[in-house]
Amino acid sequence: MMQRDRASAGLGMVVEVNEPGRAVVSMPIRDDMLNGFDITHGGFVFAVADTAFAIACNDSDVLTVSAGADVNFLATSSTGDTLTAVATMKSTAGRSGICDVEITNQRGEIVAEFRGRSRRSNLPVPDPAPTTTD
Amino acid sequence: MMQRDRASAGLGMVVEVNEPGRAVVSMPIRDDMLNGFDITHGGFVFAVADTAFAIACNDSDVLTVSAGADVNFLATSSTGDTLTAVATMKSTAGRSGICDVEITNQRGEIVAEFRGRSRRSNLPVPDPAPTTTD
Amino acid sequence: MMQRDRASAGLGMVVEVNEPGRAVVSMPIRDDMLNGFDITHGGFVFAVADTAFAIACNDSDVLTVSAGADVNFLATSSTGDTLTAVATMKSTAGRSGICDVEITNQRGEIVAEFRGRSRRSNLPVPDPAPTTTD
Amino acid sequence: MMQRDRASAGLGMVVEVNEPGRAVVSMPIRDDMLNGFDITHGGFVFAVADTAFAIACNDSDVLTVSAGADVNFLATSSTGDTLTAVATMKSTAGRSGICDVEITNQRGEIVAEFRGRSRRSNLPVPDPAPTTTD
Repeated sequence: MMQRDRASAGLGMVVEVNEPGRAVVSMPIRDDMLNGFDITHGGFVFAVADTAFAIACNDSDVLTVSAGADVNFLATSSTGDTLTAVATMKSTAGRSGICDVEITNQRGEIVAEFRGRSRRSNLPVPDPAPTTTD
Repeated sequence: MMQRDRASAGLGMVVEVNEPGRAVVSMPIRDDMLNGFDITHGGFVFAVADTAFAIACNDSDVLTVSAGADVNFLATSSTGDTLTAVATMKSTAGRSGICDVEITNQRGEIVAEFRGRSRRSNLPVPDPAPTTTD
Repeated sequence: MMQRDRASAGLGMVVEVNEPGRAVVSMPIRDDMLNGFDITHGGFVFAVADTAFAIACNDSDVLTVSAGADVNFLATSSTGDTLTAVATMKSTAGRSGICDVEITNQRGEIVAEFRGRSRRSNLPVPDPAPTTTD
Repeated sequence: MMQRDRASAGLGMVVEVNEPGRAVVSMPIRDDMLNGFDITHGGFVFAVADTAFAIACNDSDVLTVSAGADVNFLATSSTGDTLTAVATMKSTAGRSGICDVEITNQRGEIVAEFRGRSRRSNLPVPDPAPTTTD
């Protein structure tokens, strides 16, 4: 999945861990990720969590998508920081699942807490293909 | 604020409306915003909503930040689509506020519903400055 | 549905409006709904919203259940107050729906904002039956 | 706090564990907690979680209140079941905190996942007083 994920690749994300039900993804913050207050735009904090969530909940042949998420922003970050998102599947019920993602900085301080809501589809996971982004 | 916001500028966002308590921001979806399933990565859907939210809740001299948000993804989008986020402050209590953002595509179909939680700080809004992104 | 709903009846809820996609439910706060700080326990604020939500999203022959909800508490209430929950279906996508419920007191002040996530099942709505609570 | 909490007492809640940052509260489901579908009304599932959350986040002399919560309902329950809510403070930032509460039934099956958002006030915790509920 990550081989095809141009968004995550373009944002400089690195998949550190990819196990059933668990994923760790890191992303160094760049200048072009800062908002008007010189802190990381919420969309990029969300993005690294969302990628970790997608990996953690897609550990079978069936496509699982994000139905939604709740995120709490607890500390700011900026250029020079590296965010690490640790995603852990917490519970499932039928086709629905809950996946918690904790986002920390390079000092281990919690930047955000994300809780994703997954939904298993009837579709197969797409075949990996070379990314077109370089 | 948007004059300094390199993240939103780099993502191609356009502020269509900027009124007290209300903002409309649009963003055409690009190839580099697609995830491994060829649909817009959740981080970018979140980002356009978060920018509209930030504008809608920062209508005074005092900095208001995002404490968190809940988002529901209702439809997918892809390259060629343009997302529009309409943010409306819904209610406030002391320093806390709730801001609803509806994200639609160019056909008016709802792509996501976002509810932001704002928190007014004691800090002044930073002065505008030229963006360093080109 | 409400004819069978012992919980809502026991809490003194009154259904003021029951239209497709919209419901209004009111509930006077009683002493036995107060927590240790002499304010309405969050469970009862949630309960009146949840009942309004259930009515608003069950306007067909097919059972729709609550998959979850996000609630923000904006003001306290206590004995002598009457809470009114106004539920409005906001959007649907396949079997999923979003329903916003605003909870106000008798002075029209906003007490809480609730956003419910509904999920339509394959099951029929149960037949009404006499309540066993008196 | 619990000594004064008429709501929790009236619902038959029992505080099993009360440690700094952690609380366990159980509640047997009664007929008057069932909704029109003969399952526990969401308000009561929320209530037991909210009480555990309030105990876990009030471990100092300063009053901490619930600013909001997100809850996911994963399984139903009914009369004869006993729900147990295990609340654990997950992280704090300034006056804000995140507290996760897992609600299980007597077989250890997960009924709901609740994430509370706490806010520390400037007020002291009220003195305990005899409850008026019997």
